[in-house]
Amino acid sequence: MENLLSEGIKATPPSFVRSILKAASDPGVISFAGGLPNPVSFPQEALLTSMERIVKTYGSHVFQYSITAGLPELRQYIADRYHRIFGLNLTIDNIIITTGSQQALDLIGKVLLDKGDGVIVEKPTYLAAIQAFSMQQPNFYPVALTEEGMNPEGLEAALQNPVKFVYMIPDFQNPTGLTYSARNRSRLLEILRDHEVVLIEDDPYGELRFEGERLPYIGAGKLPYSILLGTFSKTVTPGMRVGFLISENKELLQKISIAKEVGNLHTNIFAQYLIWDYLKNNDFDMHIAKIKELYRKQAHTMMESMDRYFPPTVKYTRPQGGMFLWVTLPEGASAMSLFPKALEKKVAFVPGDPFYTDIRSANTMRLNYTNADSETIAEGIRRLGDLLREL
Amino acid sequence: MENLLSEGIKATPPSFVRSILKAASDPGVISFAGGLPNPVSFPQEALLTSMERIVKTYGSHVFQYSITAGLPELRQYIADRYHRIFGLNLTIDNIIITTGSQQALDLIGKVLLDKGDGVIVEKPTYLAAIQAFSMQQPNFYPVALTEEGMNPEGLEAALQNPVKFVYMIPDFQNPTGLTYSARNRSRLLEILRDHEVVLIEDDPYGELRFEGERLPYIGAGKLPYSILLGTFSKTVTPGMRVGFLISENKELLQKISIAKEVGNLHTNIFAQYLIWDYLKNNDFDMHIAKIKELYRKQAHTMMESMDRYFPPTVKYTRPQGGMFLWVTLPEGASAMSLFPKALEKKVAFVPGDPFYTDIRSANTMRLNYTNADSETIAEGIRRLGDLLREL
Repeated sequence: MENLLSEGIKATPPSFVRSILKAASDPGVISFAGGLPNPVSFPQEALLTSMERIVKTYGSHVFQYSITAGLPELRQYIADRYHRIFGLNLTIDNIIITTGSQQALDLIGKVLLDKGDGVIVEKPTYLAAIQAFSMQQPNFYPVALTEEGMNPEGLEAALQNPVKFVYMIPDFQNPTGLTYSARNRSRLLEILRDHEVVLIEDDPYGELRFEGERLPYIGAGKLPYSILLGTFSKTVTPGMRVGFLISENKELLQKISIAKEVGNLHTNIFAQYLIWDYLKNNDFDMHIAKIKELYRKQAHTMMESMDRYFPPTVKYTRPQGGMFLWVTLPEGASAMSLFPKALEKKVAFVPGDPFYTDIRSANTMRLNYTNADSETIAEGIRRLGDLLREL
Repeated sequence: MENLLSEGIKATPPSFVRSILKAASDPGVISFAGGLPNPVSFPQEALLTSMERIVKTYGSHVFQYSITAGLPELRQYIADRYHRIFGLNLTIDNIIITTGSQQALDLIGKVLLDKGDGVIVEKPTYLAAIQAFSMQQPNFYPVALTEEGMNPEGLEAALQNPVKFVYMIPDFQNPTGLTYSARNRSRLLEILRDHEVVLIEDDPYGELRFEGERLPYIGAGKLPYSILLGTFSKTVTPGMRVGFLISENKELLQKISIAKEVGNLHTNIFAQYLIWDYLKNNDFDMHIAKIKELYRKQAHTMMESMDRYFPPTVKYTRPQGGMFLWVTLPEGASAMSLFPKALEKKVAFVPGDPFYTDIRSANTMRLNYTNADSETIAEGIRRLGDLLREL
């Protein structure tokens, strides 16, 4: 069998998060390991109303094959919203609907990477992006992530290699919860202007800022080879798998469109009609405000519980939005070794390892705060604190 | 820009069908070019009832992230149906839900192919399979397709090359509408038993047999490296993008599952609940019987119209099911050159070229008969006949 498999699939790690899903879903276990939105973010009643309306209004169109780029009306909605919020000047031709942001990562890897090509990523970065790009067997050049975002000197040094693209998550980064500062965004933009590379800005959480002011994108609308990713997974429903990819580069979009056609012809057209109809007929900003208020409370409960139960040698980030925070243990401690002990205490997290392309036995871990109530968060952090004090 | 693109995407042709979609969708044009199921195959009212039921019964589960392999209940339904109809012994662990069969083709390419690896395909074969595999830059070894299916001597000869898999569409093949004979299936199985290659049987139309007796699969349940593809696109709704991949090889399934995770995490879970609920609560066999009766009539209208309007030098296949038939023009005629002239006469088809990996200006064309009523089919064939007689 082994000799029938591709080198690409052999080079691609399975997802740690998915591999522990079973252990973490034991009803006794308090899990901070997943990245599930709180179900309160799914406007179920309104979505059911939209379903009835679109079936009655559009009939067979919501069930038939459709075009690869996605429902024009939904793409127009996205163009309008990104103009209003971010000042981007877009038409529907700048937007491709993807089957979740994950498909966008897969398409980017396919369209840009050959074996051995360079990819610059944050250190640490989103584990499923590492997976998606690994399929093409690139060389990863990880650049340190600071409190202000990707380190500019590190970026400049990494760009000395033959690099195809730079992958960044500027807002409430996964896994760290960190947000790039305004000053650092400008510096990174200046550096990128001097290089022929694609900048990927992955922004699944940008709408979920519960503190501070929204900052401009780094490259979107400014760089010639810029791709911006967005999704409705965190604001409407992840189960429908509807994300989107924005670029002003027509050639790039044309190639991504071919890869998308090859990947699944088009994204579920019913789901596209559904989300468009929901957005058009409901107060989306008010809905998002409710999600943000909830996540703000849950994040604060987690941070306050950490202040109370964690030993002072353990540090953590203070996110201004999104779904995750990042814990750093004392030097030399391995979060991976801690994981089975935590499971014994009925609490789960994701050890740092899968978020790095070049580090094992990391002293870091990712915690998710969006999918548990305050009491459960406090109890889970108490259990984790007990374990950390035993270190 | 060019130097930023991957070799894989540069090697992948855009879909001819999708590129002519706009021309073919001119309301005056009678199009036999697409591959759209007749909307009568979408049980809209029953699907709307199922939507209401699953939202009420399963609540947030139909909107949340879900597992990569797919809804266990839907996989169990598929296992039971394939046991009842084909005698295959399957558990849910043999089945992965895919985002349409197209995703399955994409995953197979990723998991099995490196640049230069061999792939055996029918000559002609499904154009989107050529696209999907092309992304990995394999060497294609096309083997002639006869009235009985893939030519066994041709297969044996092609297997002398370093080949990873053989791709076949045994029932109502796309594009030809041909079905492999029972005798040829046995011969092909015997040949494949002697080689360490994966056999992909792509069966999107198997349920749509409107004449003759169902024949057994070639490799499913018999070969150690066998993959069978199926879909609900042709029997329930294509817009929902729900297909499935069946194998008894655990190692292969595990790798495909990683590739699927990377590709889009999981298939739209709402769509999976929806199709499962629909199947469970309705008479699916009766629904399929209605589709078959309609397609039988439409196919016969097309064939009778060809007998009447086509010159006798033009030959065509007589499908026993599925959605397509295949027309062969006199030697030396190019269907591709005919295409713009046909558009002038307001009728569209797909010229043979994109179904071959090694032929251009082919004297063949694919016609679809499922998405037009009898009168329209007769009129379209009359227009095409006028053109063919001018040749």
